[in-house]
Amino acid sequence: MQKRFFLSEDEIPTQWYNIQADMVNKPMPPLNPVTKQPLKPEDLFPIFSQEVSRQELDMEHAWIDIPQEVREMYTYYRSTPLVRAYGLEKALGTPAHIYFKNESVSPVGSHKLNSALAQAYYCKKEGVTNITTETGAGQWGCALSYAAKVFGLEAAVYQVKISYNQKPYRRSIMQTYGAQVTPSPSMSTKAGRKILTDEPNNPGSLGTAISEAIELAMSTPNCKYTLGSVLSHVTLHQTIIGLEAEKQMQKAGEYPDIVIGCFGGGSNFGGIAFPFMRHNILEGKKTRFIAAEPASCPKLTKGVFQYDFGDVAGYTPLLPMYTLGHNFMPANIHAGGLRYHGAGVIVSQLLKDNLMEAVDVQQLESFDAGLLFAKAEGIIPAPESCHAIAAAVREANKCKESGEEKVILFNLSGHGLIDMSAYDQYLSGSLQNFIVTDEMVNDNLQKLEKFV
Amino acid sequence: MQKRFFLSEDEIPTQWYNIQADMVNKPMPPLNPVTKQPLKPEDLFPIFSQEVSRQELDMEHAWIDIPQEVREMYTYYRSTPLVRAYGLEKALGTPAHIYFKNESVSPVGSHKLNSALAQAYYCKKEGVTNITTETGAGQWGCALSYAAKVFGLEAAVYQVKISYNQKPYRRSIMQTYGAQVTPSPSMSTKAGRKILTDEPNNPGSLGTAISEAIELAMSTPNCKYTLGSVLSHVTLHQTIIGLEAEKQMQKAGEYPDIVIGCFGGGSNFGGIAFPFMRHNILEGKKTRFIAAEPASCPKLTKGVFQYDFGDVAGYTPLLPMYTLGHNFMPANIHAGGLRYHGAGVIVSQLLKDNLMEAVDVQQLESFDAGLLFAKAEGIIPAPESCHAIAAAVREANKCKESGEEKVILFNLSGHGLIDMSAYDQYLSGSLQNFIVTDEMVNDNLQKLEKFV
Repeated sequence: MQKRFFLSEDEIPTQWYNIQADMVNKPMPPLNPVTKQPLKPEDLFPIFSQEVSRQELDMEHAWIDIPQEVREMYTYYRSTPLVRAYGLEKALGTPAHIYFKNESVSPVGSHKLNSALAQAYYCKKEGVTNITTETGAGQWGCALSYAAKVFGLEAAVYQVKISYNQKPYRRSIMQTYGAQVTPSPSMSTKAGRKILTDEPNNPGSLGTAISEAIELAMSTPNCKYTLGSVLSHVTLHQTIIGLEAEKQMQKAGEYPDIVIGCFGGGSNFGGIAFPFMRHNILEGKKTRFIAAEPASCPKLTKGVFQYDFGDVAGYTPLLPMYTLGHNFMPANIHAGGLRYHGAGVIVSQLLKDNLMEAVDVQQLESFDAGLLFAKAEGIIPAPESCHAIAAAVREANKCKESGEEKVILFNLSGHGLIDMSAYDQYLSGSLQNFIVTDEMVNDNLQKLEKFV
Repeated sequence: MQKRFFLSEDEIPTQWYNIQADMVNKPMPPLNPVTKQPLKPEDLFPIFSQEVSRQELDMEHAWIDIPQEVREMYTYYRSTPLVRAYGLEKALGTPAHIYFKNESVSPVGSHKLNSALAQAYYCKKEGVTNITTETGAGQWGCALSYAAKVFGLEAAVYQVKISYNQKPYRRSIMQTYGAQVTPSPSMSTKAGRKILTDEPNNPGSLGTAISEAIELAMSTPNCKYTLGSVLSHVTLHQTIIGLEAEKQMQKAGEYPDIVIGCFGGGSNFGGIAFPFMRHNILEGKKTRFIAAEPASCPKLTKGVFQYDFGDVAGYTPLLPMYTLGHNFMPANIHAGGLRYHGAGVIVSQLLKDNLMEAVDVQQLESFDAGLLFAKAEGIIPAPESCHAIAAAVREANKCKESGEEKVILFNLSGHGLIDMSAYDQYLSGSLQNFIVTDEMVNDNLQKLEKFV
């Protein structure tokens, strides 16, 4: 019984998959917040590299060539293993066949590197010398810092101050790769200075860090901003996960009935799901796709589909998305990568069109599943990935009741070795659930201007 | 240019290699410290499982079957990748071909699991229900905790108290796998109580933790003790590393001129080196083998070959080894896994017979090399592994001078993600070197009784 499936280097996909080209109902366009006009790629050039700006709005090309330089760097850690989770199946006593794609083996410990390498490469190619970004717990910041080093760029990362102080390991990793890491809010930008002047002990937020990183990019010559999720070009780069998994499932002689990813902004979920969803769209396959979001930040299960800003301060274009309101303050769960108020525009459209499903998972259920997985498979999963595992466990338990041998595939987006304090709290019984009701969401959305 | 080489599951070796059978000069026997008589396997049965007791002293069988149950667990993470370090070669500008075996992809982050699974399996098979061990920084403790969970055993780990308090992440990992972790010295054993009574704030040591773990095993029904390095059966299990690497080097179309491992007790070094050394012994190949030890704990380069105890308290058999004296207190370097006063009996004999070499590496040089590697290959190496990298860098730089295209293979025994505080200190300039002179070693050895 083979447990792990790999691809040889010449089997690794040479193109990413752009689902926008195959969608019957395309995502609605991002809008300029002032003119309310649909954005063109050129409108994004001041902030992002030109190539990702074009990819962001590309509704035509289903397949985008992965540059040779990026493919070469992918071979440093790809293909990642597709693993038959015999240990988990046995622990659950389920007839289901459970597979996971193990993105935790990337040198930075998560799937984030797949897009960081692409974004850094395009910047380098276009003559950019410096790149900026924001990071919370630090998964994306680590990936971007390493990618910058690979392509000879200087990286400046604004890390949410409370994470910078509480989770020093990821800060150290970024610095080991040579990045400049600044706790946000900082005195180095107007946005940061304003907040610090008003509130010297402000702990920071992803929204503030985004504002600082964009401001630095806009005010520095040859400098661009990069983002780790939400946007369509990021998900495009992450489709390498699903494209590999598709070939690896062939080697395993199976095809998934259910594909599951945890959900923050959408890039790891879309990354594993879209290449399989393509067969639903084009060939009428009936695979189910489940996004597993935290119950404390339930934009897919309790949010509203409307135009909203991507950041707290309202600097970004208006995006058509399921949102809790860009003023929503998620509870401080350990799955920091899932604490985001909105969903990317592609996933939002797909959910609206019932081409996928969403479930919410409480923090305690996510760690129950994570611990079960750690004991059964040996790998300690990231708190974010625990949400995908929990959804997979639910489906596997349904199979146990019904006796069905369904094939379940989920994405293990990262490992939890830098998040052991979360496991400590779980084991000591001090972890909490956080409930968000429809009423709380509605109250929050009421406070927002209707933009469109 | 292929970068990573894997084996299919049916190519993974089915036997470990016992170099003792092929050695012309066998290791001298361990002695009973009271009678001074050579040990027989039965003498070890009260402490260890019977099977590893036999393996420990087996001078006859060059190949030992890996039990099917252990092979099945190996497929959870093996084969580990053999990687051509193109990034490091480029950074050094060397004509050398550098390869590393990446044991850091094991679920517990190091090679330690290779022996933990075997030891736990044999205990289970022999009707043992509980196993004990000691751990310093926690690499071995994590591996043993997971292996115990796999085979349904209860694990009790004594962790050196200062590490228990200062490096809580590995403690959390052990607890996540379900192990009972006790800071040592503890009140749960006579040995611990005595120390705590004399000195309530004693920070603990590996020697004390060993004493506590052995005492618990001896005083508990169906309980055995396990050890993570030094002993010959541990190195035997680790030869899976070199046996895989041999097949993977064939796929790469090369054979190593130099094989390098970092050196604590000898298990990861022997694990990668012995399968290649076999060809030196049997076929006259001329591969060089280099053990890279910390300059602060230089048993191979400055120690003396003599009978000595394996632990500080003097509870173990007398072992013929290169030693700094079992009373040697290594400086508190970050490579905790290399802080051991002696070398295993096999390596000691091989070094005495000039079948291998040893070099010492200062702490700062090790982190210089580790940082270079992290930036070039993306993987942050464990402080222990940094010593192997430093030795590889030295050899690669010699090739640069001479223009030789030598093939260098080293073992990346683990990742450093749980050791980022060490990198922090390195980056902030607060890391130190520690010098041990011949005089200091001689003074120390003078204080010891001559046992044989």
